[in-house]
Amino acid sequence: MLPLHVQSESHVPLYIQIRDQLRAMVHTGELRPGDRIPASRELATSLGVHRTTVANAYAELESEGFIEGHVGRGTFISHDAPTPHRSAPETHGNGNSKAARAFTPAPPSFNGGSLRWESLFADERGEEALSRIYPESARGAISFVAARPSAEHFPIEELRSCTQAVLKGAGEEILQLGSSDGYEPLKRELLAMLGREGLRLRSEQLLVTAGVQQSLDLVCKAFLRPGDAVVLEDPTYPGSLTVFATARVRCLGVPVHTEAGAPAGIDLDGVEAALRQNRVKFILVTPDCQNPTGATMPLESRRRLLELAARYQVAIVEDGIYSRLRFSGPRLPSLRALDRAGLVIQTDSFSKIAFPGLRVGWCVAPERVIERLRLVKQATDLHTDQLAQATMAEFTRRGGLDRHVKKMCGLYATRCQAMLKALEKHMPEGVEWTRPEGGMCLWVALPAGYDASELLIHARERGVIFAPGRYFYGQVPQPNVFRLGFAGTDERQIAKGVEVLAEVLREEMSKRERGGWRRVEGRVALV
Amino acid sequence: MLPLHVQSESHVPLYIQIRDQLRAMVHTGELRPGDRIPASRELATSLGVHRTTVANAYAELESEGFIEGHVGRGTFISHDAPTPHRSAPETHGNGNSKAARAFTPAPPSFNGGSLRWESLFADERGEEALSRIYPESARGAISFVAARPSAEHFPIEELRSCTQAVLKGAGEEILQLGSSDGYEPLKRELLAMLGREGLRLRSEQLLVTAGVQQSLDLVCKAFLRPGDAVVLEDPTYPGSLTVFATARVRCLGVPVHTEAGAPAGIDLDGVEAALRQNRVKFILVTPDCQNPTGATMPLESRRRLLELAARYQVAIVEDGIYSRLRFSGPRLPSLRALDRAGLVIQTDSFSKIAFPGLRVGWCVAPERVIERLRLVKQATDLHTDQLAQATMAEFTRRGGLDRHVKKMCGLYATRCQAMLKALEKHMPEGVEWTRPEGGMCLWVALPAGYDASELLIHARERGVIFAPGRYFYGQVPQPNVFRLGFAGTDERQIAKGVEVLAEVLREEMSKRERGGWRRVEGRVALV
Repeated sequence: MLPLHVQSESHVPLYIQIRDQLRAMVHTGELRPGDRIPASRELATSLGVHRTTVANAYAELESEGFIEGHVGRGTFISHDAPTPHRSAPETHGNGNSKAARAFTPAPPSFNGGSLRWESLFADERGEEALSRIYPESARGAISFVAARPSAEHFPIEELRSCTQAVLKGAGEEILQLGSSDGYEPLKRELLAMLGREGLRLRSEQLLVTAGVQQSLDLVCKAFLRPGDAVVLEDPTYPGSLTVFATARVRCLGVPVHTEAGAPAGIDLDGVEAALRQNRVKFILVTPDCQNPTGATMPLESRRRLLELAARYQVAIVEDGIYSRLRFSGPRLPSLRALDRAGLVIQTDSFSKIAFPGLRVGWCVAPERVIERLRLVKQATDLHTDQLAQATMAEFTRRGGLDRHVKKMCGLYATRCQAMLKALEKHMPEGVEWTRPEGGMCLWVALPAGYDASELLIHARERGVIFAPGRYFYGQVPQPNVFRLGFAGTDERQIAKGVEVLAEVLREEMSKRERGGWRRVEGRVALV
Repeated sequence: MLPLHVQSESHVPLYIQIRDQLRAMVHTGELRPGDRIPASRELATSLGVHRTTVANAYAELESEGFIEGHVGRGTFISHDAPTPHRSAPETHGNGNSKAARAFTPAPPSFNGGSLRWESLFADERGEEALSRIYPESARGAISFVAARPSAEHFPIEELRSCTQAVLKGAGEEILQLGSSDGYEPLKRELLAMLGREGLRLRSEQLLVTAGVQQSLDLVCKAFLRPGDAVVLEDPTYPGSLTVFATARVRCLGVPVHTEAGAPAGIDLDGVEAALRQNRVKFILVTPDCQNPTGATMPLESRRRLLELAARYQVAIVEDGIYSRLRFSGPRLPSLRALDRAGLVIQTDSFSKIAFPGLRVGWCVAPERVIERLRLVKQATDLHTDQLAQATMAEFTRRGGLDRHVKKMCGLYATRCQAMLKALEKHMPEGVEWTRPEGGMCLWVALPAGYDASELLIHARERGVIFAPGRYFYGQVPQPNVFRLGFAGTDERQIAKGVEVLAEVLREEMSKRERGGWRRVEGRVALV
């Protein structure tokens, strides 16, 4: 057992004592990457403290990257743990990493030895968020972590046939250097598909990209300089936060309504206040099945958002990535479709409706915006992979995409229903969740005072994982919320997984009723 | 014929009179995109001026994007011509576009009409260079423009078989969201390949990217902030200039030696002076078969460059993209192989040795650099396309890559020899060129006072095109140099094309001997 000691009479909360001692042992090398540490229950017993106290300490250490849990194997010192050697660059960092302040990097050496990369790195700005959400530990668990498609339904034989056909028909062209605009046959298919959906576009209004993450990077490069401001949904897709952090852009987060009584989606008074008080470049929104909340903006909100953008002369970047995965509620026109002032840039992708492993997405925007984005794209990676583009063009041309979307939409509707049913059946009173009309995830709020990161520690020990809400906030995270992805998990796993989550939560709740509580540093800890 | 008038007694050079009148006609809409303008010879006759005068005017208009030549069809107002509407954003620009200053954009409208995108764009910074080098007009010409592989030798059937095998064996994994590091089987193959070449690496020292252009973008994001300085070869790969321009980085260009008598490659005294006078983050070099000059740095220069970098504690970014295409001279160790201080980031790709249409490259660097680049990669586009990665892994595993490289290396050696022979046979005295030991291009210098852009105007009318040297300079372009790519053109075309170039040049030379010359604005114009 670890040589830890806690002083119950100290003014320092017990969980912080445990956290700091474990952290120190990593720094001194007593604990090394890969070392297994005791399960929370085990350590709690040996220290004579409550299991929640240990779980709180573990939650903090995990969020700092010191430890990682592996389902069925236990909890280990992370291979990415910020040991003094590895984390030295973070001392320039953005303050997210509390651990980095706990020691001083080695003094610079001018002896002609190894290069001090620390002195050359630009400061880090939070790019790690995405990796943290999707830990390796997902293997073997019932995982509600991701919002990604169900791979066992991929029509692999059909895709094989498409790659065969395109390489046979246009192999030389596909394998040779291509155009930054996009591969012409794919642009044609996309224009036809968008046309069938009611959006008539010219080729000059369309740019193929490597997916929405890249589209955001390109938009960022074309529009934003350090210090510029954008309005974002809060919570939002974490990948947008990493793009803007990298570009040192000011993110103005505006709350997303999910509660009954308010129109779902970004708070429009909040948007207006942000536009009035700041020189904003654009507003980034996902009007359909927003990630992570699942909220869909009603028609009136879409109209008002467009009016606001026109009045304040800012652009809107509309992420339409989930719009074809609506399975209930009326189909609503996109912001792009409603836009009369030419102020919308729409980002979209095959990642959610088809195959995220093929990195193909697109942007729809006014011609002069596309012209600008095309040059930025060229400077970024020349062009998008052409085998993937040609394959998706052929898959679309053959009707495979339409068939696949229809099938997956039905599947996700069933899975969403199964999750809603399980939540209804098992969750204790005081827990709330959204009822999305499509997409891949829903959003759960624990009663105030409960921490989703702590719930995750306990749930993982029982083989169930999810994404705590804190990853989705640009500013102050709410601790009591989390995202459940339902698209990649079958109904049996959903029923089982939600039941386990509810059980763990009930256990915590009943312990709290028996124990004494006080607020410590903004979180509830058992002392 | 166009309503142009020239005043021979004016102090304004004739070619500038012609240029400005044509430019004005585009601005007023008298000439519109797609309109054909007369051949230089024709317009010269009608105006009673020398053909070179018209060619000079056309060269300027072309470099500004106003006109474009199409082989066998004539010269046209460009669809990308900076008309008042289209070029308004450029008035924020970097001064590269002289045309943009010739008019004022429409005043801002606050009437709730279209969005004024101009007010939202970040300023443009030269991303256009790459598009300009590769004009559409390449079709139908003998083209020495590009440095890209010969597509007719692509082993398409073998590739088809590879895509079949990987989709059959690992389709679900390939099509599902992947890892920012790279697809594991490809990383394994790359490590094995690099190991066979003498570079033993751990997986943590390798990151898969979408090619060298993206690797430069990632390195740029990880290391550079606006105002930071890098040392570059001058001339250099234009794609690196666009990356650094986008990031507003100071580029310190150091001349590349190609002449006999000096060690080939970047001037090391120049590098040292740049390091002494500036806080430089890294030095970007292509030691093997540099693009555009074809220069290969000798071993002693490589050692000295590493010493300089260690002494001044700066990193080296080594582009190894042509290193496997050495076909003569001793095989030299890469900077990465010689590096004892851990200061080299090596960028590399399948683009030159195999298929640029599949966007797959990689970076080799110390572990903590890769760790940082991986996070930046994730924030940029999540990960590289996995169908392309899996296909290249399989192609490499089967030995297809080795066989292809060997074959292409032989082919390019033959083509390079053919080009050197043709230059030797046809070029007039005073013209000089490099004799590369590999790669895809060589570098030609006309006698001082001759302008390669002007030569291109005449040569294109005869069906031969190349890349004028001005695109490759970060700072002051030398007007008299140009790049000839030999990889994508067969021996018959090479012989014919070089003969035509030499003829055109001889004609110009003999005209100049007969005519009167003076220097105008740094270029030689016949008046």
